[in-house]
Amino acid sequence: MGTNLSTQEYIVKPNYLKFFERGILKRIITESDNQAGSKVEVVTTASQIPDLVGTEYIEAFNQLNVTRVNVLDIRTREDAGKKEYLDRIREADVVMFSGGDQLRLSSIFGGTEFLQILKTRYQKEKFVVAGTSAGAAAASTTMIYRGQSNKALIKGEVQMTAGLGFIDSVIIDTHFVQRGRIGRLLYAVASNPGMLGIGLGEDAGLLITEGTMMEAIGSGLTILVNGRKMAETNIYDVEMGSPVSIKNMRVSVMSIFDKYDLLTNQLIIKKTIKIEDGVFIAPNNNDVL
Amino acid sequence: MGTNLSTQEYIVKPNYLKFFERGILKRIITESDNQAGSKVEVVTTASQIPDLVGTEYIEAFNQLNVTRVNVLDIRTREDAGKKEYLDRIREADVVMFSGGDQLRLSSIFGGTEFLQILKTRYQKEKFVVAGTSAGAAAASTTMIYRGQSNKALIKGEVQMTAGLGFIDSVIIDTHFVQRGRIGRLLYAVASNPGMLGIGLGEDAGLLITEGTMMEAIGSGLTILVNGRKMAETNIYDVEMGSPVSIKNMRVSVMSIFDKYDLLTNQLIIKKTIKIEDGVFIAPNNNDVL
Repeated sequence: MGTNLSTQEYIVKPNYLKFFERGILKRIITESDNQAGSKVEVVTTASQIPDLVGTEYIEAFNQLNVTRVNVLDIRTREDAGKKEYLDRIREADVVMFSGGDQLRLSSIFGGTEFLQILKTRYQKEKFVVAGTSAGAAAASTTMIYRGQSNKALIKGEVQMTAGLGFIDSVIIDTHFVQRGRIGRLLYAVASNPGMLGIGLGEDAGLLITEGTMMEAIGSGLTILVNGRKMAETNIYDVEMGSPVSIKNMRVSVMSIFDKYDLLTNQLIIKKTIKIEDGVFIAPNNNDVL
Repeated sequence: MGTNLSTQEYIVKPNYLKFFERGILKRIITESDNQAGSKVEVVTTASQIPDLVGTEYIEAFNQLNVTRVNVLDIRTREDAGKKEYLDRIREADVVMFSGGDQLRLSSIFGGTEFLQILKTRYQKEKFVVAGTSAGAAAASTTMIYRGQSNKALIKGEVQMTAGLGFIDSVIIDTHFVQRGRIGRLLYAVASNPGMLGIGLGEDAGLLITEGTMMEAIGSGLTILVNGRKMAETNIYDVEMGSPVSIKNMRVSVMSIFDKYDLLTNQLIIKKTIKIEDGVFIAPNNNDVL
């Protein structure tokens, strides 16, 4: 059985979903068995403005002729345990986590039956879990939740905790390019070199099939940081508060249609991309994303 | 004979030189034979507000008890040829290029006697050439002068041209972290894999001795991108306007006191850094930067 996890990004401003990002939403729906007839639940827990965000998603999906869209307005751990909500996620085809603060996601859903149902369905059924911004960052087992990145790479500044745990062995950071987060992702991977660092730019998403094959979707830029062959770091030598140095991380740039196999750690780059009327078209494939 | 090139960074705002950045200015002066007695010429050509920038530098150097500081207010190629100015750079101990637009630097100084004098002195004498922001970016033989970096890595978007040419085989980008420029530096190196990409964060500088040994100065973050062992890119395959993918660049993080040898491409990481009263102190060395 195929299982999917899709992640997406947006710029935090009043009009959340721009033209391009609807391309990612569209892809999420095409990955779902019931297509435009899919039942979609939007989880707005990460957001401080859940009503606004929920409405935006409903409208955006409606524009794609997806009309069975509802918001799970869960604000506490108690909310997360409500039988009505558990029933709804058991019946959904797609569950989408909005942006906001990823620490709210992990602290409200960590260890709940709600999360267990999603994980089991993600592993065993044809079911799409998607996340944008904080919702994408929280998808991995380890997540970054805080960390200045404009200054030096200071030991102790980048803070990580357990995420929702849909995907193992990766650390996802979002708004990666716009907020200049290369330093903090390099730091996070240097401290856990077995993890693949994933930096999602604006309107960049990953579709993860079978939990192992990632495909870049959206028009944006995805940066991969592989620390397995890191030559050297002084991260364990220096005192807290001291600047950290890191030698020879392997960094790759994934663009639309590229694939990355998490089992073999191989990036497969699409050699040619056609542009027709400003839209990228994959070679040997008429799918327009 | 030792020759030096120092580069430094600042945030473009009314108060140009902050406390930390004066640390870099101090280091520039300690590298000059005449120390606080050095004759310093500040070249404000890159800037749109040369009077303001010139005054800031004079005041900042004065605070370091360096009083023989003057501004070379060169705004055109004709200015650059004035005999008075050529005489002044022949007598200076330190020439410092301010920030602004690096394309002004290359187009006003390219091919001039002014630049030839500086290069000859840099190669043959104990003489310090320093640059901040655009002045640092223009120091290399190839420089990036334009290129959106917030979106996908699009073929043709990052534009490069010849710089002032003090250092070969490197491409320097500045305001690197704050402006999210990892994408454009990876692109620049992918298109010239023999070049070392250098991304200077805020208050990050490099002291380049003998044209080959670089030392990180300042409190900020420096990112190095080595493309010599890049596995694959589709940069030459895809059409202009298409997104580019890049596989396995080697990326390192340099912090204060680390060194990099441009001849052997080796990064030497300082293992321990002491912190005393919030100031970083190199091991086996009482120099406080």
